[in-house]
Amino acid sequence: MPESLAELRRDLAVAYRMVANEGILDAFGHISVRNPNNPQRYFLSRSRAPSLVQAGDILEYDLDSNPIVPPKERPYSERVIHGEIFKARPDVNAVCHHHAPSIMPFAISGAPLLPVFHLGASMGLSAPVWDSRDEFGDTNLLVVKPEEGASLARALGAASIVVMRRHGATVVGGSLRELVFRTIYSAKNAEHQLAAHVLGNVSPLTAGETQMAFEIHRAPGPLARAYEYWVRRLAEREGRSKNDPMLRAAEAAARLPAPAKPASAKAKSGAKKKSRGR
Amino acid sequence: MPESLAELRRDLAVAYRMVANEGILDAFGHISVRNPNNPQRYFLSRSRAPSLVQAGDILEYDLDSNPIVPPKERPYSERVIHGEIFKARPDVNAVCHHHAPSIMPFAISGAPLLPVFHLGASMGLSAPVWDSRDEFGDTNLLVVKPEEGASLARALGAASIVVMRRHGATVVGGSLRELVFRTIYSAKNAEHQLAAHVLGNVSPLTAGETQMAFEIHRAPGPLARAYEYWVRRLAEREGRSKNDPMLRAAEAAARLPAPAKPASAKAKSGAKKKSRGR
Amino acid sequence: MPESLAELRRDLAVAYRMVANEGILDAFGHISVRNPNNPQRYFLSRSRAPSLVQAGDILEYDLDSNPIVPPKERPYSERVIHGEIFKARPDVNAVCHHHAPSIMPFAISGAPLLPVFHLGASMGLSAPVWDSRDEFGDTNLLVVKPEEGASLARALGAASIVVMRRHGATVVGGSLRELVFRTIYSAKNAEHQLAAHVLGNVSPLTAGETQMAFEIHRAPGPLARAYEYWVRRLAEREGRSKNDPMLRAAEAAARLPAPAKPASAKAKSGAKKKSRGR
Amino acid sequence: MPESLAELRRDLAVAYRMVANEGILDAFGHISVRNPNNPQRYFLSRSRAPSLVQAGDILEYDLDSNPIVPPKERPYSERVIHGEIFKARPDVNAVCHHHAPSIMPFAISGAPLLPVFHLGASMGLSAPVWDSRDEFGDTNLLVVKPEEGASLARALGAASIVVMRRHGATVVGGSLRELVFRTIYSAKNAEHQLAAHVLGNVSPLTAGETQMAFEIHRAPGPLARAYEYWVRRLAEREGRSKNDPMLRAAEAAARLPAPAKPASAKAKSGAKKKSRGR
Repeated sequence: MPESLAELRRDLAVAYRMVANEGILDAFGHISVRNPNNPQRYFLSRSRAPSLVQAGDILEYDLDSNPIVPPKERPYSERVIHGEIFKARPDVNAVCHHHAPSIMPFAISGAPLLPVFHLGASMGLSAPVWDSRDEFGDTNLLVVKPEEGASLARALGAASIVVMRRHGATVVGGSLRELVFRTIYSAKNAEHQLAAHVLGNVSPLTAGETQMAFEIHRAPGPLARAYEYWVRRLAEREGRSKNDPMLRAAEAAARLPAPAKPASAKAKSGAKKKSRGR
Repeated sequence: MPESLAELRRDLAVAYRMVANEGILDAFGHISVRNPNNPQRYFLSRSRAPSLVQAGDILEYDLDSNPIVPPKERPYSERVIHGEIFKARPDVNAVCHHHAPSIMPFAISGAPLLPVFHLGASMGLSAPVWDSRDEFGDTNLLVVKPEEGASLARALGAASIVVMRRHGATVVGGSLRELVFRTIYSAKNAEHQLAAHVLGNVSPLTAGETQMAFEIHRAPGPLARAYEYWVRRLAEREGRSKNDPMLRAAEAAARLPAPAKPASAKAKSGAKKKSRGR
Repeated sequence: MPESLAELRRDLAVAYRMVANEGILDAFGHISVRNPNNPQRYFLSRSRAPSLVQAGDILEYDLDSNPIVPPKERPYSERVIHGEIFKARPDVNAVCHHHAPSIMPFAISGAPLLPVFHLGASMGLSAPVWDSRDEFGDTNLLVVKPEEGASLARALGAASIVVMRRHGATVVGGSLRELVFRTIYSAKNAEHQLAAHVLGNVSPLTAGETQMAFEIHRAPGPLARAYEYWVRRLAEREGRSKNDPMLRAAEAAARLPAPAKPASAKAKSGAKKKSRGR
Repeated sequence: MPESLAELRRDLAVAYRMVANEGILDAFGHISVRNPNNPQRYFLSRSRAPSLVQAGDILEYDLDSNPIVPPKERPYSERVIHGEIFKARPDVNAVCHHHAPSIMPFAISGAPLLPVFHLGASMGLSAPVWDSRDEFGDTNLLVVKPEEGASLARALGAASIVVMRRHGATVVGGSLRELVFRTIYSAKNAEHQLAAHVLGNVSPLTAGETQMAFEIHRAPGPLARAYEYWVRRLAEREGRSKNDPMLRAAEAAARLPAPAKPASAKAKSGAKKKSRGR
């Protein structure tokens, strides 16, 4: 957990660049995080390509998506996606809107995105589909008006991801790390599902499997382990030294202590240790 | 807007390398820009792989595709693509001819390329298809004779992209930046459409949606934001420092001032702000 | 062959990073090697993303997957995959569990993975499929309980790879190098088979072809040649100098002496030389 | 044209690394060139992964694939592919055997590889298919015996590429540069053809188109332009300076003089200039 708003802004900027580095975001798409000190506000970058975002680019908004301080630079016009979801979902503290290549075939065809592997279960039981045409008819497809954002938030409902027809997807999380994990692995799930359609007989997880695998992939172990990996890849891309504070912090956070007793000592103790490591 | 022809040549060379860096061009393909001081002339590199083009490689031609100054080095033989389109389309100031992997399946099968997501709407309502066989029978498929270029220009008509059977595509724009944006996002549109065919039910944008999304993606905000992104990726590939003038200029150009009043302040003002940021 | 356990730990760490560098492992998946001095024990990293694993991360376990020395840091929860396979298969000295993108379509659809090219024959005649549902009903899909690991080992039987429904695959080898080779080329086999399904008429190797091609791809020549290649790619990724000991060792190991007599001198001697080089 | 055998060995090593860098070769596959001073001999690397091959690794063989000087290190066992083709095809001076990912679906399914775009016409009118089973029954699929190589050469016939069932392909050229061009663009042709099958209605070039496009892609202009591009990409991968002699030579070779008279000056002169630049 970040200790200060300055750290939160820096972590948000890292999340932008990290998710971009994994191929989910290109020149477009954006990530927000709710202000932990004031849940009626959230942070979002100025209008900038995700791979370029730095802490200094982060702006603060109220839940009507009005800036707290009049910005000098252009904001994202689609920020109502974030504000309206934060309004509708008090459990959500981070939102990512993107047009990942692996998600697009589902957004274009409307075929249902399904959890097809354990890590993909981080997308939840299903992905509702929102079509801007249903309520708004012909638009430029951007979600700019508050009522458009509210409509999208209603379509999302209690889910973790909503597919936007002919546009992309929006993913939510309880924390920035959970959001990053879910964004990346729901996109991989889409990639694997699409490829499986070439073979036919796409067989998803059951509701029970999905629920259990969903829970385990929000546990600190998997989140920290994956985060250290993505930070390292970003650091390599950015040419950072191995002593870069961003890297050191992720490494330390992923160095979780062993449980008091070995996790898979035989017999009855096995079951309750499932959530550790992988 | 470039301040001088020297800057225009440099910007054109950057466009070659940038579009190549995004995987649209390989050893072949080329980009031209009309001379803003003399619309009867255009600029094009000597015959060279796009990722290697420098400002010093740029030659000037009249609209019959004859060089203004006899070149020392070999020109592209397909330059009539550019000359004949500049003749036929006064609104066009930049042209890119390419064989992007994502476009080729459409060029080979003749299946219609359709705008399937908001950014893909930058390709316009449809992509006419030109088949060299129709007028010229068996050729080596290169567009070398003026009459071949003129035929291609007729097929393009008022569109923004023309697919060339068993060859590739040619894209046009009102400016170099608009061209780069359209070239990259029409190729992504093709990639997404192809993948969606695996799922079936490919559902394109309506004419109304396409028109609105087409317009918004020629606005200064999206063009500058995407351009800064592609320049940065090129600069990283070329090992340039963060103070490289090319980078600094793109960064400054993308730092657009905020609108006088917040873009999504509720109610009636929302609609007219759609074109800002994203 | 490694000369000491210290070398074995280092080689295991290299295997983690090498297989990750080839795109088989991401933040998850793991590789183990049996202790050559004590076949009732094996080595496995602490819970860490494969591309980050160093020799110092390697822990030692007994075949019940209990740590020999209580670890300070979190172990992988799925280590019973390794322990139970080492128990059931005395011929196996190395195990890799992964979720490679090319394997996932087969894990999702259940379509049989077949050896479709000579290098793919390193997967063996067929890939049995294990579905956690069959014995355990709804789970989070992780293989954490000893009985789950034992069930997976039974499904593997005498094969070289077992596909895990909606999860991934586990590959085994007689040595670390054989395992690395088999892991990478069975994943490539899956990639090629999937692509061939687009064309139809997927025609696998016969049993006789598979057996012969399987054998030849465990010979020292192909293993050393491929290992040198993957080490070099890893070294480039990690920015190592050309004099790095890891590189030098792989290069020396791949510099095998020529056979006493040229391998394809005409006529009858040709057949028995098949296993050399390629 | 290389001025000496030392240059030829260096050029051959560059071809290995260049074709590997374009994704056609991995740990396996090999390239040979005929000795221009003695057409009864050819050059081929010792058994080594292509991306690692240096001039010092190149060995010389007679057309029975016996080494001229007993090698200290292990040769490729499949060298009869090269020797037998050089025997059967006096017009061939360079041979590449590979397992490119884009070719494999055709090798697995047996579906015909067809020239589907102008650059792909460098593969020629069609790709004969060789199945080792037809004459030799079950083997390990490697082409090791002279009679196997001779059988493959017969299947190749007068073509430019032969697809090897469940194995890969072998490509031939009149020169090393022509071979490199044909190897890379026939692989791209396969990639585009496969993708077009997703859309259906794969429409290849006519025989007349193929013949004309085949010829133009052996002309010095396109070969030198593409070669400069691939050398530059290799040099970037290998971290070479912009003054590296390999780069300088390719750049100079690609700087071809302009024709005496502009290539597309209108009317009747246009047709005969087709072969220049592109």
